[in-house]
Amino acid sequence: MVPDDFERMWSDLAPIGRSARSGGYFRQPFTQPERELTDWFRGQATARGLRLESDATGNLVAWWDAGTGPGVLTGSHLDSVLDGGAYDGPLGVVSALAAVDELRERGVVPVRPVGVSVFVEEEGSRFGLACLGSRLATGATTWEQARSLRDPDGVAFEEVTEGGEPGLLDGVGMFVELHVEQGRDLVDRGAAIGVASEIWPHGRYRFEFGGEANHAGTTRMEDRVDPMLTYAMTALAANKQARLAGQRATFGRVEVTPNGTNAVPSQVVAWLDARCSSDAALAELVATVSRQAAERAERDRTSLTVTPESVSGAVTFDAELARRVAADHEGGDWPVIPTAAGHDAGILSAAGIPTAMLFVRNPTGVSHSPAETASIPDCLAGVHALAETLERLAT
Amino acid sequence: MVPDDFERMWSDLAPIGRSARSGGYFRQPFTQPERELTDWFRGQATARGLRLESDATGNLVAWWDAGTGPGVLTGSHLDSVLDGGAYDGPLGVVSALAAVDELRERGVVPVRPVGVSVFVEEEGSRFGLACLGSRLATGATTWEQARSLRDPDGVAFEEVTEGGEPGLLDGVGMFVELHVEQGRDLVDRGAAIGVASEIWPHGRYRFEFGGEANHAGTTRMEDRVDPMLTYAMTALAANKQARLAGQRATFGRVEVTPNGTNAVPSQVVAWLDARCSSDAALAELVATVSRQAAERAERDRTSLTVTPESVSGAVTFDAELARRVAADHEGGDWPVIPTAAGHDAGILSAAGIPTAMLFVRNPTGVSHSPAETASIPDCLAGVHALAETLERLAT
Repeated sequence: MVPDDFERMWSDLAPIGRSARSGGYFRQPFTQPERELTDWFRGQATARGLRLESDATGNLVAWWDAGTGPGVLTGSHLDSVLDGGAYDGPLGVVSALAAVDELRERGVVPVRPVGVSVFVEEEGSRFGLACLGSRLATGATTWEQARSLRDPDGVAFEEVTEGGEPGLLDGVGMFVELHVEQGRDLVDRGAAIGVASEIWPHGRYRFEFGGEANHAGTTRMEDRVDPMLTYAMTALAANKQARLAGQRATFGRVEVTPNGTNAVPSQVVAWLDARCSSDAALAELVATVSRQAAERAERDRTSLTVTPESVSGAVTFDAELARRVAADHEGGDWPVIPTAAGHDAGILSAAGIPTAMLFVRNPTGVSHSPAETASIPDCLAGVHALAETLERLAT
Repeated sequence: MVPDDFERMWSDLAPIGRSARSGGYFRQPFTQPERELTDWFRGQATARGLRLESDATGNLVAWWDAGTGPGVLTGSHLDSVLDGGAYDGPLGVVSALAAVDELRERGVVPVRPVGVSVFVEEEGSRFGLACLGSRLATGATTWEQARSLRDPDGVAFEEVTEGGEPGLLDGVGMFVELHVEQGRDLVDRGAAIGVASEIWPHGRYRFEFGGEANHAGTTRMEDRVDPMLTYAMTALAANKQARLAGQRATFGRVEVTPNGTNAVPSQVVAWLDARCSSDAALAELVATVSRQAAERAERDRTSLTVTPESVSGAVTFDAELARRVAADHEGGDWPVIPTAAGHDAGILSAAGIPTAMLFVRNPTGVSHSPAETASIPDCLAGVHALAETLERLAT
């Protein structure tokens, strides 16, 4: 059986989990579309004669058992944010399979095993904790910490998967993740391919605003304890503070109780996503937003609880490895650039595994949106860049 | 079979649709709890030998076929807002049944038929249009207008009920609705019972803020088109304008797309509930909030569409009828007071049916909340007041 090439694989995945309404993807972990994607991956691995390993969380590695010693792992994830794009995640998985094909066609024989990985729930779109699969695989998060995470419908993580010890990454000596760029840095540089220098520190913080439910018609304005007002001011303050500081802050998720048109809410819960160029800047930004929210809560007589749900410190990728990957290509060195997006590569790097990331140019810079895109020539350049990288690292 | 008395009926209803978590009620129309309540009502009517009529929408009237000529109708509704209180609606239905019992025990023989009514979807908590049952029964809303209304899960109104012509109210000459007060006017006056003079004009307006979905981490603040910001400013503006004008404005319901922590939203839809002391004041308040929202949308580069979903003009109840109901009681006249809450009574009054409302004191003034309450002595005073009123109007 001849394995599918990049474009065939890409078009096979295109309809899976795509909304007919928005054109965006709903590939939440352990749902039917995401299971279809992992089944597809297993089939592709089998067609290539790769040996499949999985762990109790559902993370997968397809091994090309060439050579000996610690393996070189490459891959990404197949899940998406809600109504997300086609590229964030799957591009890295499909490119990894296509890069293996290129090496084989060129007759390259690695001296180390080469693995293609798929990590579960990278986006945290269902259980709220980003990079959940790689966190469990590296031990950064324990099963005891993860098992009771719940999705918005109240389903616990332990209801959809089995607990288990990490171990899947024991034979891994290096990790390379290819990913669509989530900004316009490569566009501005006129380069199709880049290499990551670092990931900004980032965190998710749950803001719980409590008030008093009441009738929207009969309750005088001065008698209200309305948490929507405290939330609204906090959302504006977060935006303003991030602009002033040159950082990033977003309130993109809100849940209102009871969420009735004619009721003053009893509670508003909203999540702050904050990303900064340094750990200190992140701490300061979150502290400033929290302080302004608390001041407004006092004025509104509402309550406020701020809970960090996940905070990831700055990740600086192995600089020597990045140089080794980026240097001496046809047309010159690939640019080495930072990113404000979290990735499984950041988790593996923080766990002590030498890690590199390749970025593929994104003409609009848009990501986490149906508008996310990359050109086919740039995608094919990405496959070739990844094959070259694996050749440098595994031969 | 001896009919249950007020307290027995009240305790029978208490567990139906009550959330164990909040203590609030979820009695949305055509859901299991609300169907249980209407079945209960049918059983109570049968136990009293009342003749049941219903229409294609599910509105119910239980007739005491005494006397002749146009009947005197009394009743309210059994549905609740999301996470609402026990009293808003059911108090008027249970008190009506208990008032019939009191009249019979006292041997009062009406010269006109007396009916006890239950109107469907008074709160608009499921299909978005308040007083939907009474609007259909009076023809204020046609079946063609109502059939395609959808609940938040996308279920159309026509999927849960049958279409049909109005007709249920053909034999009705007068309507009296007893309701828990949704404010503290009677508390301030030291009175257990009041009579309504008027209902403030009020409306629901859908504000649709459109933006561009993008990655919350990698998208520079200045590159964003974030509808959450436009919404947040609009919610604060609505509150401020209502305070300045001495009117009421609330954003209590918000739906965000895709509602992901790490995504700038593509859309925020929020509903403005506005109530004012005059039609002109309502129009001015909504125009001011819409203008401020549009100005902010221009600054944010977001889009804005404002759609009135239901607007009800001022209702002035029949003044002569209110005087007749309120005057000459033991302890003096009952106070005649306005309300900012909408009611089926307002719809029937606007349809030309002479209508009166009785209010029962609410010690906290809180409504549309699990904290909504009334004391048992005040509830029993309400039953007696309603029986006296029916006696005045139907004998």
